[in-house]
Amino acid sequence: MSRNSFKDLLPESRILDSVNDCEAYGHDWCRAYEGKASAVLLPENTREVQAIVQRAGEQKIALIPSGGRTGLSASATATSGEVVVSLERMRKIYGIDIAEQTIHCQAGVITEQIQRAAKEHGLYYPIDLASAGSSQIGGNIATNAGGIHVIRYGSTRQWVLGLEVVTGRGEILNLNGKLVKNQTGYDFRSLFVGSEGTLGFITECTLRLTRLPRSFPRIFCAAREMSDALRILELARSVSNSISAFEFFTEACLQYVLQHHSFRRPFSTVYPYYFVIEVEDMTDEESLRFQELFATALEQAWVSDVIFSQSQQQADDFMELRERIGETTASHYVVQKNDISVPVSSIPAFLRDVDELAKSTFVGCDILLFGHVGDGNIHLNIVKGEGLSRDEFFALCRAKESTIFELIAKYHGAVSAEHGIGLLKKDYLHYSRTMPDVELMRGVKRVFDPDGILNPGKIFDL
Amino acid sequence: MSRNSFKDLLPESRILDSVNDCEAYGHDWCRAYEGKASAVLLPENTREVQAIVQRAGEQKIALIPSGGRTGLSASATATSGEVVVSLERMRKIYGIDIAEQTIHCQAGVITEQIQRAAKEHGLYYPIDLASAGSSQIGGNIATNAGGIHVIRYGSTRQWVLGLEVVTGRGEILNLNGKLVKNQTGYDFRSLFVGSEGTLGFITECTLRLTRLPRSFPRIFCAAREMSDALRILELARSVSNSISAFEFFTEACLQYVLQHHSFRRPFSTVYPYYFVIEVEDMTDEESLRFQELFATALEQAWVSDVIFSQSQQQADDFMELRERIGETTASHYVVQKNDISVPVSSIPAFLRDVDELAKSTFVGCDILLFGHVGDGNIHLNIVKGEGLSRDEFFALCRAKESTIFELIAKYHGAVSAEHGIGLLKKDYLHYSRTMPDVELMRGVKRVFDPDGILNPGKIFDL
Repeated sequence: MSRNSFKDLLPESRILDSVNDCEAYGHDWCRAYEGKASAVLLPENTREVQAIVQRAGEQKIALIPSGGRTGLSASATATSGEVVVSLERMRKIYGIDIAEQTIHCQAGVITEQIQRAAKEHGLYYPIDLASAGSSQIGGNIATNAGGIHVIRYGSTRQWVLGLEVVTGRGEILNLNGKLVKNQTGYDFRSLFVGSEGTLGFITECTLRLTRLPRSFPRIFCAAREMSDALRILELARSVSNSISAFEFFTEACLQYVLQHHSFRRPFSTVYPYYFVIEVEDMTDEESLRFQELFATALEQAWVSDVIFSQSQQQADDFMELRERIGETTASHYVVQKNDISVPVSSIPAFLRDVDELAKSTFVGCDILLFGHVGDGNIHLNIVKGEGLSRDEFFALCRAKESTIFELIAKYHGAVSAEHGIGLLKKDYLHYSRTMPDVELMRGVKRVFDPDGILNPGKIFDL
Repeated sequence: MSRNSFKDLLPESRILDSVNDCEAYGHDWCRAYEGKASAVLLPENTREVQAIVQRAGEQKIALIPSGGRTGLSASATATSGEVVVSLERMRKIYGIDIAEQTIHCQAGVITEQIQRAAKEHGLYYPIDLASAGSSQIGGNIATNAGGIHVIRYGSTRQWVLGLEVVTGRGEILNLNGKLVKNQTGYDFRSLFVGSEGTLGFITECTLRLTRLPRSFPRIFCAAREMSDALRILELARSVSNSISAFEFFTEACLQYVLQHHSFRRPFSTVYPYYFVIEVEDMTDEESLRFQELFATALEQAWVSDVIFSQSQQQADDFMELRERIGETTASHYVVQKNDISVPVSSIPAFLRDVDELAKSTFVGCDILLFGHVGDGNIHLNIVKGEGLSRDEFFALCRAKESTIFELIAKYHGAVSAEHGIGLLKKDYLHYSRTMPDVELMRGVKRVFDPDGILNPGKIFDL
């Protein structure tokens, strides 16, 4: 049925409707929902996307803008017969401008290809994600992807110079082009960043790039109190503007990683908290000042132990301890993952509260806390205890998640730091946005998509 | 009449309606419009602003959100009996968080006070404007103010972490608070930045800060072709991520400055183009690499001459030559100023075209071109020639400005780089935004301000 609606717009080979395709293109990496698309369309350029949207508007067909489908909040899912419009054929990189430090491409380009193309010219696209090998840049933009370097480089939002979009009204907009300075009316480009495909299709983009750093030296340290981390952050920031990561994890996390990988424990003593601080292109002067800083910190007992990386290999090993946590728990255990954020200065108090809450709620489970101190983003992983069945565990998680969200709201935090709302967190949006705020979002949605054909039911219901 | 509408909301001393006040608060630094407010209200907190907006909504009274009134596009003008709501009494700085690098304050705080407060804690608010001593931070946000450091630090948009606003519906929204990472629905914060007071009042904000640089060394050089500037920009960017200004001006500009100030000509030879490159906290290694780079550039004749500043005084003198251009022409001549931008890589071609166009159009006038190479922002100043009366000159400017705007549109540029649209450039918005785009802006305006009471007629007509 839906297939026929579009058959004059695309060649047969670019309209898929096998059961397998409708299932595979219908879900993302969040496996809580089953894919049930009615067809999959594969446009190759903006004009084709426009024709599809115009036709869908006439016939009131729901469309799902689809990238690499690496999302974790079911933002790009077709769960009730919608038509998926995948941008996987829109992979042209039009060019890199070295003096401007920009790249212009179609939205279906894989994130890693952009990183690689930049690197070939001594340039750097600093948004780096675990899913960079599969995610598409259009999806990164639609979800304002973050990653590990947010403390220095911000999220995807900061790197989007211009967008070409097709709105739900079927109109093509060029938003800002390649202009660094432009003050001519509302910045719809920023509105599209993070709108999770509910306002329009992102079809092309121009991204900012920066200079490729030469090295990524790292400092590994341990502390007894989380509040000391803020002191270290403050001092480190007074030394350098180039702190490109400030990660933390607890002893419990370290134990999980060491149990499943052949890393050595970095210190002979066990400490409650560990930190990895990355300082891109650290200068000799900075290195000297960091050594003085940590000598003072040791004296004052703000940190308990510290190692400066002596090689890139050692620096990489430090970061591996942090980066393997998520994968280790996901591969070997039944785990409930939470992606939340609070203001940076609230991290110590929030961590204390959430740890206490989780331990008293999830008795017998392990509570793993890790994340990015520099940007307030905390990963709370709850590992199923032996005394609970899988079903009991997830039932408990569902029953108790509102207590965690209430705690987030108390600290003026976000129920989604970087994964987005999609279908998964729609019922919890009100912990981060007020009723009038959501009502305004509905109003804006109606302006850009009056027929409600774009990604219906994601973020909020109309 | 209007005074009575609000007299139960504010004490008498905070409702002004003398002829002088209604005139003074009714215009900004753009003197093309006369101030004709019917009253001026001086709220002290967000609740009072909310009460004013709610009352105005009930009685359909037009309100003008008003900051330091330093704008140059008549964005904050009351020209037909509107009520000005000045935030000049909302000057509380609530606090600075050093670890987070944030400052939280009311929207009426003077920009310079924020810069100063940050500096006291070794921090830096990098948005610096000629009007920083008078402009208010709320106005900076509402117009997405830029300034001289955009190449490194971006515009105000990049520094706004959270906003509190009162929408045209009289609702208070807290947009993002102090969160670095937050992916929970549309980013209305970004929509408010640059919306020129047409969607709501900005009442409070949390700004990001960064580390205070220790020094601002500068390189002064001359070139024969503007296209060489892009080559220099590219090479300079390959050396350092800390290029914080890349300014240019022509020999004609230099002559105007030297005529009215006691500076020395930097080179004994006259060159067509001059550049000032600022590299914050230049390291010894960077200094060495810049010297190598410029040795090559001289060899290849990409630059004709170069001086590295040997002291902050000398570095400041370099920048003075550039910074005095605007003031010199404004103080001593009759001049038409244009604030435009094009993609960085289009600067050489655009400058060639605009110079040719201006010279053939404004015969006998001097054409002064200067601005920011790094962010594509060009100031085109046309100085009245002796053969024209003042009236003839401005009539000619009005008659010919569309030819300049057409040239900007040809290069996909912006008719306003940083001054905004306001009343002054409303008729030229279509050179930078398409009809469907403007129609969407109208739709969004109606969502946030259904009664059309906020800054009516600015940017576009409803």
